[in-house]
Amino acid sequence: MKKIKVGVAGYGVIGQRLADGVALQDDMELVGVADVAPTLSVRALKEKGMPYKLFTAMPDNTAALDEAGIPISGSLEDLVQQVDIMLDATSAGIGLKNKEIYKKYGKKAVFQGGEKNTVADVFFHGYANYEKGLGADYLKLTSCNTTGLIRAVDCLDREVGAEKVAITIIRRVADPGDYHRGLTNALKIDKAPSHQAVDLMTIMPHVEATGILIHTPVTHGHIITVVLTPKKDISVDEAIAIFEKHPRIRVVSIDEGFLGNASLFRYARDLGNPRGDMYEIALWKDSVVKSGKDLMFAINIPQESVVIPENIDAIRAAMEMQSDRESGTSETNKYLGIGTWKK
Amino acid sequence: MKKIKVGVAGYGVIGQRLADGVALQDDMELVGVADVAPTLSVRALKEKGMPYKLFTAMPDNTAALDEAGIPISGSLEDLVQQVDIMLDATSAGIGLKNKEIYKKYGKKAVFQGGEKNTVADVFFHGYANYEKGLGADYLKLTSCNTTGLIRAVDCLDREVGAEKVAITIIRRVADPGDYHRGLTNALKIDKAPSHQAVDLMTIMPHVEATGILIHTPVTHGHIITVVLTPKKDISVDEAIAIFEKHPRIRVVSIDEGFLGNASLFRYARDLGNPRGDMYEIALWKDSVVKSGKDLMFAINIPQESVVIPENIDAIRAAMEMQSDRESGTSETNKYLGIGTWKK
Amino acid sequence: MKKIKVGVAGYGVIGQRLADGVALQDDMELVGVADVAPTLSVRALKEKGMPYKLFTAMPDNTAALDEAGIPISGSLEDLVQQVDIMLDATSAGIGLKNKEIYKKYGKKAVFQGGEKNTVADVFFHGYANYEKGLGADYLKLTSCNTTGLIRAVDCLDREVGAEKVAITIIRRVADPGDYHRGLTNALKIDKAPSHQAVDLMTIMPHVEATGILIHTPVTHGHIITVVLTPKKDISVDEAIAIFEKHPRIRVVSIDEGFLGNASLFRYARDLGNPRGDMYEIALWKDSVVKSGKDLMFAINIPQESVVIPENIDAIRAAMEMQSDRESGTSETNKYLGIGTWKK
Amino acid sequence: MKKIKVGVAGYGVIGQRLADGVALQDDMELVGVADVAPTLSVRALKEKGMPYKLFTAMPDNTAALDEAGIPISGSLEDLVQQVDIMLDATSAGIGLKNKEIYKKYGKKAVFQGGEKNTVADVFFHGYANYEKGLGADYLKLTSCNTTGLIRAVDCLDREVGAEKVAITIIRRVADPGDYHRGLTNALKIDKAPSHQAVDLMTIMPHVEATGILIHTPVTHGHIITVVLTPKKDISVDEAIAIFEKHPRIRVVSIDEGFLGNASLFRYARDLGNPRGDMYEIALWKDSVVKSGKDLMFAINIPQESVVIPENIDAIRAAMEMQSDRESGTSETNKYLGIGTWKK
Repeated sequence: MKKIKVGVAGYGVIGQRLADGVALQDDMELVGVADVAPTLSVRALKEKGMPYKLFTAMPDNTAALDEAGIPISGSLEDLVQQVDIMLDATSAGIGLKNKEIYKKYGKKAVFQGGEKNTVADVFFHGYANYEKGLGADYLKLTSCNTTGLIRAVDCLDREVGAEKVAITIIRRVADPGDYHRGLTNALKIDKAPSHQAVDLMTIMPHVEATGILIHTPVTHGHIITVVLTPKKDISVDEAIAIFEKHPRIRVVSIDEGFLGNASLFRYARDLGNPRGDMYEIALWKDSVVKSGKDLMFAINIPQESVVIPENIDAIRAAMEMQSDRESGTSETNKYLGIGTWKK
Repeated sequence: MKKIKVGVAGYGVIGQRLADGVALQDDMELVGVADVAPTLSVRALKEKGMPYKLFTAMPDNTAALDEAGIPISGSLEDLVQQVDIMLDATSAGIGLKNKEIYKKYGKKAVFQGGEKNTVADVFFHGYANYEKGLGADYLKLTSCNTTGLIRAVDCLDREVGAEKVAITIIRRVADPGDYHRGLTNALKIDKAPSHQAVDLMTIMPHVEATGILIHTPVTHGHIITVVLTPKKDISVDEAIAIFEKHPRIRVVSIDEGFLGNASLFRYARDLGNPRGDMYEIALWKDSVVKSGKDLMFAINIPQESVVIPENIDAIRAAMEMQSDRESGTSETNKYLGIGTWKK
Repeated sequence: MKKIKVGVAGYGVIGQRLADGVALQDDMELVGVADVAPTLSVRALKEKGMPYKLFTAMPDNTAALDEAGIPISGSLEDLVQQVDIMLDATSAGIGLKNKEIYKKYGKKAVFQGGEKNTVADVFFHGYANYEKGLGADYLKLTSCNTTGLIRAVDCLDREVGAEKVAITIIRRVADPGDYHRGLTNALKIDKAPSHQAVDLMTIMPHVEATGILIHTPVTHGHIITVVLTPKKDISVDEAIAIFEKHPRIRVVSIDEGFLGNASLFRYARDLGNPRGDMYEIALWKDSVVKSGKDLMFAINIPQESVVIPENIDAIRAAMEMQSDRESGTSETNKYLGIGTWKK
Repeated sequence: MKKIKVGVAGYGVIGQRLADGVALQDDMELVGVADVAPTLSVRALKEKGMPYKLFTAMPDNTAALDEAGIPISGSLEDLVQQVDIMLDATSAGIGLKNKEIYKKYGKKAVFQGGEKNTVADVFFHGYANYEKGLGADYLKLTSCNTTGLIRAVDCLDREVGAEKVAITIIRRVADPGDYHRGLTNALKIDKAPSHQAVDLMTIMPHVEATGILIHTPVTHGHIITVVLTPKKDISVDEAIAIFEKHPRIRVVSIDEGFLGNASLFRYARDLGNPRGDMYEIALWKDSVVKSGKDLMFAINIPQESVVIPENIDAIRAAMEMQSDRESGTSETNKYLGIGTWKK
């Protein structure tokens, strides 16, 4: 089987993980990654012996990379020419510029949640609308919170129907090691409705959604509480059983020791997962309650890694490697080792 | 007019503020406060020149107080004998023991949210059930979150009816200066439903309530998001107008600079409020949204001071100083300077 | 006695406190304060009923102030013409621009630590070099950390001589309510030597100083550890006795309950100090240790308020209200209530 | 070659890493680990397929482990009988109890910094006093801060002599995922001198040491500033060159992007190190300054993993696998991959 050739633009928090995720797919080949400066991530790549080739988006300005002794394999344009599809994980706004290069060489691309919706033909989520991505040239992924949220809402929606949701996003404000942003001893509120609720309605137009987002001074995982009005009244246990079946949802409990977002980060480290990452969202069994017919529950979103599987799904859809949601997401899961721990 | 004589047991975070609040009431007299050790609060009382008499709950064990040079005016029992009613703000569980002393001398008492409900005859909230407290001997106040939450829910309920609420409590984990508890770079989830939702139903049995509580590592104010199903469909502007009328609710906006809980603390400090306290909860105008008929909004709870007005209300009810909710809460508000800034 | 007329430019964290401090001096008159926008501080001024007149630095652009209903008493230029001296607490860099206005009207000015040294004729500290400020037209105050640090070093230097100091500044990264800067779950190191060590040598050129600064995600007070090589070998108790005598140093202990910077903030709130401010630095008795002849100790710097007294001292020096350090600082202390709690 | 058989008691933060470290040594065999409850770490071990055998310290009380489906290979006593030496990483105080079991079966043991010094015959540090550990039955390792600190001080001491040190420890207060302790928006000071300074003098009695410790609300790495009086005056560059040669010290700089403790954690994650761990301390090149002859510099201590190499060294010394410091530490470094990135 011919492997799909993939490049990654932007070797930051998301880009690194996309590269690692693609490298795990037997039916894909990671041609290389592109970045512009000797960031810590690029320095770590060098210290590891350059397992991935590095291309530079600024071929005329390599002094800093050279000084740091980072070997360069060519320009971003060189990389684009060698691939079938690009995953663009550059800073918000750069993707739109890069799209010109992708277009120039007739290559498909997948953009991240930070880009404007107009950058892409399809606003994509592996589980919620895989089929819309089939053969598309430009796809944009949902952001980390929306990706995780839609997994949970779509999961219930397919079984019992979802009428409306009201979400509260308790957002981690920075990633571990971030020094360019932060919040100290403060909660910060955004104007409502949160974009995640709006985005959910774009992907799942049959569901009404609203929400409030509060930033909190922590780094390991967002927590979202969801109030969901189902079409069909189900019990707490039935809801949990539905979540248990989803490969990308981990059902956990406080009694087991999962006391919050930091427990999940610790658990992923103890599992030996690279970087302490987790692809699954977690759903707390002990958080599921009802008010009338409404279900309320809390999920944890590992912001650095949660979008990786759906990005791989996007490659599968765009390149038509698998023609339906079930087989596309299953292949991704298989190579990422997702769901294997569920008997 | 004869002033009602009040004593305060426990001179900690809440006790100090109760004492200050009582001292502001023209129709009450603060006889004294009781504590057991030379805490920072007691040391500050001394440095201020003992504006309040200090009684000790452990009259046989005053070595530490003596060594710190704190003058003692008698025992807790002495204090109890001199008052008409006690406000008990001791640590959870101590109130139940102190009740024996109050009983012994036939004195009424008001307990705080940390005590078990069984300590009291009435579970009290100044706005939601003032009349239930009339003449009662033992009242228990709702906790800080529940007190603030009920203000907002009761306020809407009286105008349009509230069917059910689903709350997400984003809880500050410690007060400024707390060293005996804390949380570092972690969100922590409690088992659902939160006790605040349950407590709300005790006070307002006609409303169905559930909720999830998440602890966050901050010290200035809880934020609660509320999804409320009203009996009557109202617009966002109508909801805001209702909140605007409540004396103990401040309607604020992000555009004015109220970016989160810490903005409200800063504002209260800049107002010159003692300790930077605020008696009002804040409601963010820009957080009010709708999903179907449901209203969603966010409120800020200044945890150290929010219960003070309702405690004063409790004295008024228990001592039958005012016979109805409207006049009881109005007197409290007048002396605490609440609502004066609303034209 | 004719009162010295003072204006304050910039009504932010420092400016507000300068205004309050000046207003407490019987021999000074606060003419007004200047700011440009309806910040929370300006909104609080309005809610308090405009105890201080507000002038605007942007008289052609008052739309936002007008919309917020803030009454304006004139322009910054109007204010400058009515005063003898200006305290400039605007954002770093603005002071230099404002200096043109002060010059135009022949008015003296005191700038804050954020401005470049070249803005002023004298780099000033009330205790370390009061006499240098006598009659000066433009003075620049040391920053909050340097101000507090010099108090402690100068205090020992005058008694036993200081040869050299090596400091570690454990810096609070933001003030309560700051949302424009922050740090989350991270310590951040600056390049050494820290500017505070360099500044100390400018003010006290006979002392050699170096230091390292680490930012920490907290809001209540910097802590500085000082390793000081004295000229004369003294005991720990002798050192403590010297610190005890300084009016602007509070000697505290862990045993009393002062467990860290947040305890001091709490204590100041419990004292009823406006905004929970404290003018004194704190020195932990239980932190004073020796290594050979070297003394090591830790001090707490209340960053929002520590520079206020030395700013008032600067007015006294510049206006030649008192001709020497002892009488100048004593008058400031008297009106600010500093040191009264020391018998 | 016969492999040394090692067991690990306590499978927590340190125990897990000890197990992983031992498993990497070609001349050692990890027989198993012991714990008492289905903690998250033990659950992760199970999800990974039990790469290490689990023994239980409470063989009569296995209900919780059984319920969680964790297979048990025997009791702690069973484990002890199968090994040559135990690494005890149980909670402070338990090690002393466990020592009875080790004694009963005539097995050597290495205890961690939390145990009292009296638990062991030798207070050990791989670089500072390897030879003292040769053939010893019971060794106690220095704590994480002391271990890292001594690396740096010993490193300079061997080259130029160290007379005295004054340290400021800016301590992370909890590990990622800790919910049983924490600190929120506060710095906390301990009574001086810090135990780390005292411990340094126990290991290096020819050096005078004192220090102050401040707890900070972060989770990724302690930072220590050291003021060191060398016997011989050396330049900043000479000092850096000395640190560069030490295999367990990484010399980093702010210019490269290492802005603080969180940068090092991020870098270790990006390196792909299991759990994002780093065995080396980091020393900031840009922090090294001088005051007179004194050197001042800052180091970063990765608290979860820094003691692992010295623990392995302790096995080598106790079992007399290598007879001197140089060869003992080199073998440890080789198997842990330490220093390989230094050309």
